[in-house]
Order: sequence, then structure tokens, then C-alpha cells
Amino acid sequence: MAATAIRILGLDPGLRRTGWGVIDTLGTRLTFVACGTVKPPEDAALAVRLAFLHAELAKVLRTHAPDEAAVEETFVNMNPASTLKLGQARGVVMLTPAMVGVPVSEYAALLVKKTVVGAGRAEKGQIRMMMKVLLPQADFETDDAADALAVAVTHAQHRGMAALKARVAAQ
Amino acid sequence: MAATAIRILGLDPGLRRTGWGVIDTLGTRLTFVACGTVKPPEDAALAVRLAFLHAELAKVLRTHAPDEAAVEETFVNMNPASTLKLGQARGVVMLTPAMVGVPVSEYAALLVKKTVVGAGRAEKGQIRMMMKVLLPQADFETDDAADALAVAVTHAQHRGMAALKARVAAQ
Repeated sequence: MAATAIRILGLDPGLRRTGWGVIDTLGTRLTFVACGTVKPPEDAALAVRLAFLHAELAKVLRTHAPDEAAVEETFVNMNPASTLKLGQARGVVMLTPAMVGVPVSEYAALLVKKTVVGAGRAEKGQIRMMMKVLLPQADFETDDAADALAVAVTHAQHRGMAALKARVAAQ
Repeated sequence: MAATAIRILGLDPGLRRTGWGVIDTLGTRLTFVACGTVKPPEDAALAVRLAFLHAELAKVLRTHAPDEAAVEETFVNMNPASTLKLGQARGVVMLTPAMVGVPVSEYAALLVKKTVVGAGRAEKGQIRMMMKVLLPQADFETDDAADALAVAVTHAQHRGMAALKARVAAQ
């Protein structure tokens, strides 16, 4: 078996703030690479804000060259205007890796919380805390970046389990 | 005064079908250039569908080189899951012109209908009919393409009125 680390980009989309986090995964080992928050100019036209978001994420993709990306599936139980705004940011966030051939997986928010905290009803604070435990080097400044790292960790676990199942099935 | 036609790209976003229409406007004259409908593969992953939508619209932008783009403001009175899907398509549709420096204006659906039909409660059929009157050369095959041309015509009218107001104010 080749022991090559897989680099994962986790994304937590939002029009005001989009969190991103990059980790390497090799077997069960997770290594923090980088994370950050994109804040498009709030007073600009919508198209300009989306272009800013795209350009910043494109930079992240060029700099860190992830193999795979993961995005949290979005709650839609808020008001329709907010859902539309979030949808627009999410469209750009999913497009940007796909444009350069990086596959994008989606994970339910509940699964992300269960994976990193062990409970579906985790508080933001718990996710930050668990990210500090799982990725001690992580220097996230915002909950958005911590959430993005949590999605990346979820993908690392999930893709690992899928590979394990495939290996067991092949025996 | 320089008499240079302005080329406008109108867009009617949707994840299953996005309509687009290009017109030239010079004074009060409107000329049909091209129109079409982008249909991302319905059974593909969301990110792949968004990447398809982006690539097709990028081709339209390269081929027709519009000066300005216009998108209908979206109704959000449907169910949240549909609003999120539409939002994701709309994010990509607004980003694609913005990425290449083409400014994107937004127009309320009511204004589009009032502008092209003269009434806010226009049926789809009325918009098609008026597009046939205003742009006899238009060969739209779908309501989405007709709606996209209607948004382009609305922008042509609106930007003209804005320019007229500015000229009157300057006298």
C-alpha cells in the first residue's frame, strides 16, 4: 500500500464570512496545514462580493493544492432571504474547487458535530475545543475557520471508513 | 456624443435550466444578438452541475463579450430547499460575469414584467410574445431564454433612463 497523505480542504460557506481549513490525513493521523476566514466587502454589490470570495478561495486552492474538498450541508430553517444569500455564497464556494478539478463532498451538519464532538447538538465552543485537541497546531481565529476544519476532519474520517469498508469487502 | 452600441447579457438563473440572452442597445434601438439555455446534468453531484453552468456561461461571455450583465432578483416565497438550490445557481450565474470584469445589475421580477409587458402580473406567455415583438430575430426555444432577454431589455431601458436623468440634471 502506498502511504501518501491526502490533503483536504474544508469549507464553511457564508456571504459575510466563509471559513476554510486545510488538513493532511494519512491513515488515522491528521495534520493541520492552514486555515483562515474570507470576509467579502459588505458594502459592495453582490456580484463583487461573490467575485471577492471566489478570488480568495482560488488563492487558497493554488497555495495549498488540496486533493479533495468538503462542505457542510446547509440548514435551511431560517428566513428565505438569508437562505438565498447563503445559497449564493455556497454556490461560489462549491464551484471554486470544482473548477480546478477538486472533487467536493457534502456532509450534514449533524454528522460533522457527531464526528468531531460525539454529539449532534454540539455548541460552537465544543467544536473549537475539539479542533484544538485534534489539531493542536491549528491557529483558527474564527468559529468559521474552526467549523471548516471540522468539516475537513469529518471528510477524513468518512473517506477513511469508506476505504476500510472497501478493503474488508475485497478480502 | 459617441454612438456606440452597448452589449447586454441578461440571465435567468436556475440549477436545472439557466436562460441567457444577449442584445445590443443604441439609443432606443434594441437588436437581438443570441440566446440559449444551459442545462447542467441533473444526475451529477452539485459541484459538478455548478461547474458545468459556470463553464457554459464563461463560453457565452467569451463568444459575445457583453459590456454589462443583468440578473432578475429572485422570488424567495417557495420552499427553503428550492431557495437554497436556486441561490447556489444564482451565485454562480452572478460570479461568472463578475470574474471577467463585467458589471452585474439586479432587477426585481416585478420591474422586468412591468417594463416588457406593462403589467406586474404578466404570464410567461406574455413575456415570450413581447420578446417576439421587441426582438423579432430572437429564436428562443425556452421560457428561460425569453426571460433572460426580458431582463436584458429591462436593463437597456433602465440604464437609458438613468443616463437621461443624469443628462437632464447636468443641464
